[in-house]
Amino acid sequence: MNITHAWAAQDAKSKLAPFDYQPRELREHDVQIEVIYCGVCHSDLHQARNEWKNTIFPVVPGHEIVGRVTAVGGHTHKYKVGDIVGVGCMVDSCRSCASCDEGLEQYCENGFTATYNGEDRQTGDITYGGYSTQVVVNEDFVLRIPENLDLAGTAPLLCAGITTYSPLHHWKVGPGKKVGIVGLGGLGHMGVKIAHAMGAHVVLFTTSPSKIEDGKRLGADEVVISKDADQMAAHVNSFDFILNTVAAEHDLNPFINLLRRDGNMTLVGVPENNHPSPDVASLIFKRRSVAGSLIGGIKETQDMLDFCGKHNITSDIEMINMNEINEAYERMLKSDVKYRFVIDIDTLRG
Amino acid sequence: MNITHAWAAQDAKSKLAPFDYQPRELREHDVQIEVIYCGVCHSDLHQARNEWKNTIFPVVPGHEIVGRVTAVGGHTHKYKVGDIVGVGCMVDSCRSCASCDEGLEQYCENGFTATYNGEDRQTGDITYGGYSTQVVVNEDFVLRIPENLDLAGTAPLLCAGITTYSPLHHWKVGPGKKVGIVGLGGLGHMGVKIAHAMGAHVVLFTTSPSKIEDGKRLGADEVVISKDADQMAAHVNSFDFILNTVAAEHDLNPFINLLRRDGNMTLVGVPENNHPSPDVASLIFKRRSVAGSLIGGIKETQDMLDFCGKHNITSDIEMINMNEINEAYERMLKSDVKYRFVIDIDTLRG
Repeated sequence: MNITHAWAAQDAKSKLAPFDYQPRELREHDVQIEVIYCGVCHSDLHQARNEWKNTIFPVVPGHEIVGRVTAVGGHTHKYKVGDIVGVGCMVDSCRSCASCDEGLEQYCENGFTATYNGEDRQTGDITYGGYSTQVVVNEDFVLRIPENLDLAGTAPLLCAGITTYSPLHHWKVGPGKKVGIVGLGGLGHMGVKIAHAMGAHVVLFTTSPSKIEDGKRLGADEVVISKDADQMAAHVNSFDFILNTVAAEHDLNPFINLLRRDGNMTLVGVPENNHPSPDVASLIFKRRSVAGSLIGGIKETQDMLDFCGKHNITSDIEMINMNEINEAYERMLKSDVKYRFVIDIDTLRG
Repeated sequence: MNITHAWAAQDAKSKLAPFDYQPRELREHDVQIEVIYCGVCHSDLHQARNEWKNTIFPVVPGHEIVGRVTAVGGHTHKYKVGDIVGVGCMVDSCRSCASCDEGLEQYCENGFTATYNGEDRQTGDITYGGYSTQVVVNEDFVLRIPENLDLAGTAPLLCAGITTYSPLHHWKVGPGKKVGIVGLGGLGHMGVKIAHAMGAHVVLFTTSPSKIEDGKRLGADEVVISKDADQMAAHVNSFDFILNTVAAEHDLNPFINLLRRDGNMTLVGVPENNHPSPDVASLIFKRRSVAGSLIGGIKETQDMLDFCGKHNITSDIEMINMNEINEAYERMLKSDVKYRFVIDIDTLRG
């Protein structure tokens, strides 16, 4: 198999730079994928800089991968050479626990194998992600990409898309439901698009008046400036569900108070320090709840892709060359991207 | 109508003392009830001492009332003289909002009328509770007491019983479910009994080794000392549901970590200051949730009473005379009661 050209961080302090490696030989159920585009997730930056204290270096980030099948293992039956496919945050799981049995591999009781910085279940080798010319993945963790979707804009669906689709679907968002999306970044802008396509009345919460117009263009029926107490007060007790995509530490209570009885707010961002403690009385007096949600299962990810195909939903992206990744990280830290960087992996081929 | 003898607090600093008042004339749908027993809830103390800053004095506490119907209004059709009945935390609600329509009057969008320290919806008069020889209540907020139940032990079901039954029922506790009850006080001991009768595997969490034996007697399959990290670790990721009855400020994370995927912990106690903030990652990585729950609706309260009748469940009580109430409050502050004080209201009749 050809050598793989990639970009990796060699330690927490150094910038990403070229790194070549030899991929594993194809196993019976493997799919070899020529990566075409890879989205840039905030997790990539956290891992490259070892901010979660679990990075094994060198690390090749990237878990929003789309590409073309270039070879398959002897018993691979789901994909054939030439298929356009995707890979998200997982490349394996134990496949035998209760969560795996239910198709919720993201909650694998034995820990799923992450697409990068994960440990191969057979060899113990560390997995490398999509900032690479190719990846080799077991067919059960490969997704089919609807033909009508723009491929570059599809890459971020593999993480940002499923991370928002899964809780929206789990909490039964649809027609007749009033749904809030907190934050208009990579996740939030997908949340707005997907909740809108699900038929809900969508309200975007943002701290930036400059995002009002964009929020509406993306599908929000209303945009509320969350720092404006009067605007917030007008929505008290009215939301069935709020998807909170903001990882930065913030006060959850102003949003909890907007939930109606039995309403739920789900958090999908892990703050560096926990948010200030939610007010217990606000939960009790309306039977409200606060939950978390992690990406989504493989079947659900395929459902999400099919849903996005049907509604022609992709991410709003800014395309970059591979050698612009370090600059992109700096801009991402300032939320200076609308709304996801996607790497053109062709720029990594010589 | 006869004058009512009661005990009231005249201000936040004074002890409860005798207080007579004239009850309202019977309205068409009213039931006049000779109070036989009244349970003593921690809320009574909070209100008597104006700890929630909303007490209107004089206040006659008591919302765990059982008694006998002594008269009915002209159009009252649900009860007749001689019936044994109960009254809980509510005596009215708006009856027209979405929550009332669904029989969830405790979440009335316009605010339910509390049994004491509430405001009568017709006259604006302040309601007086069950530390009284009689109460007059609209028939729609009167409950029927199963004949087989010990009447004194039934009084606490009207608040402590429904407050624990409602979330256990709402979150579908039953056979095959592993359920935790945090705290063995007035609420917790009812939670253990009810969850056990629902057929769940019940684990009691307490900080007091002295309560192990009692916990098992009450129906717990296991008792875990929550300060013992090893005991806690043995239960990680295993609970479908945890009912947390502890109002004192405490760290929720050790309990959240015991929930399995999609598990929920519901809080029914309002701490004076919020608990330390829950760890967001613990919620996200198992799709766990934290919720609140408030007493229960009228229909649900009747269901709870019927359920307790079927399973012969009452509260473990310590009977007191009316003139022992101030001492009982002091003991309640030290959790020195197993597990609920109930006032013998006959001791209030001269």
